[in-house]
Amino acid sequence: MTAPVLFLSTVFKPDIWLSSLKSLSPGLAIQVWPDADVTPEAVRYAVVWRPPHGVLRTFPNLACVFSLGAGVDAIVSDPDYPRHVPLSRMIDPTLTQAMTEYVVLHVLYNHRRQRDFEALQRLRKWRALNAPRAEQVRVGIMGLGVLGTDAAQKLVPLGYQLSGWSMTRKHVPGVRSFCGQPELPAFLAQTDILVCLLPLTPETQGILNRSVLSQLPKGASLINAARGAHMVPEDVLALLDEGLLSGATLDVFPEEPLPPESQFWTHPKVTLTPHAAAATDPRAISRHIVETIAAMERGGAPGNLVDLSKGY
Amino acid sequence: MTAPVLFLSTVFKPDIWLSSLKSLSPGLAIQVWPDADVTPEAVRYAVVWRPPHGVLRTFPNLACVFSLGAGVDAIVSDPDYPRHVPLSRMIDPTLTQAMTEYVVLHVLYNHRRQRDFEALQRLRKWRALNAPRAEQVRVGIMGLGVLGTDAAQKLVPLGYQLSGWSMTRKHVPGVRSFCGQPELPAFLAQTDILVCLLPLTPETQGILNRSVLSQLPKGASLINAARGAHMVPEDVLALLDEGLLSGATLDVFPEEPLPPESQFWTHPKVTLTPHAAAATDPRAISRHIVETIAAMERGGAPGNLVDLSKGY
Repeated sequence: MTAPVLFLSTVFKPDIWLSSLKSLSPGLAIQVWPDADVTPEAVRYAVVWRPPHGVLRTFPNLACVFSLGAGVDAIVSDPDYPRHVPLSRMIDPTLTQAMTEYVVLHVLYNHRRQRDFEALQRLRKWRALNAPRAEQVRVGIMGLGVLGTDAAQKLVPLGYQLSGWSMTRKHVPGVRSFCGQPELPAFLAQTDILVCLLPLTPETQGILNRSVLSQLPKGASLINAARGAHMVPEDVLALLDEGLLSGATLDVFPEEPLPPESQFWTHPKVTLTPHAAAATDPRAISRHIVETIAAMERGGAPGNLVDLSKGY
Repeated sequence: MTAPVLFLSTVFKPDIWLSSLKSLSPGLAIQVWPDADVTPEAVRYAVVWRPPHGVLRTFPNLACVFSLGAGVDAIVSDPDYPRHVPLSRMIDPTLTQAMTEYVVLHVLYNHRRQRDFEALQRLRKWRALNAPRAEQVRVGIMGLGVLGTDAAQKLVPLGYQLSGWSMTRKHVPGVRSFCGQPELPAFLAQTDILVCLLPLTPETQGILNRSVLSQLPKGASLINAARGAHMVPEDVLALLDEGLLSGATLDVFPEEPLPPESQFWTHPKVTLTPHAAAATDPRAISRHIVETIAAMERGGAPGNLVDLSKGY
């Protein structure tokens, strides 16, 4: 296979991806942006993560763009994205499973008051803390795509009451579906633990703000494993201080790495992880890319396409 | 119903249990040990938790003893226990579910390195930590009774490799069964996260010792939610310091409350909770007691009996 492929990322170093792709398809001709010897006309496939806006439009013969992550917000927000070029998103079972592990861990962590137990441990205090039974705990997942659906399905057997909120109505066994802006208040009013797994779009940016979160029952918990830009940081901090939120598990932040002066590091009600909920697996993703390129070179169509009008 | 019932506990205050039993069976005649007006000959049922040794033998007309907890070690270890009296153990779905929540939470907590992430948070360090995929993690549960089986069944869908070790061979779908002392080394050699849910018997006392735990792969984790006496504390602390164990989640201790000077409080690789994994639900247990007494008064037999020769 000699289809010219361009690796284009402002975040990831190319080495691991190049060796992973080459090991699966030794004949693949891969170049790395912004090397000087890249001929724009020759680029047929682009493997990208957080590409600078305006760059993708400079390759006139692009047949497909592959995103190295599940979230494609940094790509579709490019006003110059060549809209005729299909954008293929990663659906990586390994990433899905890792995200579900993270969500199940932190739903239990918040429900079973593990943060409070650790505070007691630091004080050497042996003190019982009550937690409700899982049947009494309502977990609401914002975003019922591949990730949200899988997490919900793994939480149902633990006894939780599950609901989901998404743009369109979903039918997941054991999970009550709310959809669209009109049903958001009803969804929030019955959610004790809110899990954000939404795609980042102009509609969802900043959705974790005071106006939305204050519709949760008092003392609710927040888990954000989607994107930092879903959250208005000062609103979340204020709601924690006011007790409207009893705790938060945050994996993503508007600025990453999180600056040392951020209050999130030291807030006693915040558990934070460094964008570690779920990482893409280079091997699984490389397999998808190599197989899709091979299919397209035989005249086939790419899969896992992003709806560019929706942004996810 | 006027069958005379004695409440006998050195730990629990009687109030909540008496009101719970009375609300279900207002006619129940309940006395509290060691009130002076208890007539030993009149006691037909005893509701007990950690009774002093030798006391139960003083009631010549006992028809049944009810244990208020799942673990009956404090009762069957009484050398003077009247062996002809059936001992009915609590199998409380609420307790089982709470224990499973605890086990799933702490398997994920250890697997996903949450303890390490919290240490990084305290240092304000944004640093990625690798965790294996669940398929690569072997969870071994000691004790495949009601609790161990339920926990295993909830861990299988998360992708873990499950095995169990018990006195007799068990058949739980997705869970490899090891049994008896001869298969203990093979069980340990393939266990990355060891979960102890054993009953406490003379055979299992002190089983979490250096000789046993050092048969785990280097860097294994330990979760003990059974009894403090299963563990040899100085061995566990030494193995953590030596790195043979990478972490431990401990809910139970030989002495409870854990004394303030214990090293477990401050050990950086230890997460401890104050015997909080799963509490008995007075209402569910009271229902079992009241229903069993009613059945026995009609000539029926009690259920959930402990095999006194095995001790569980």
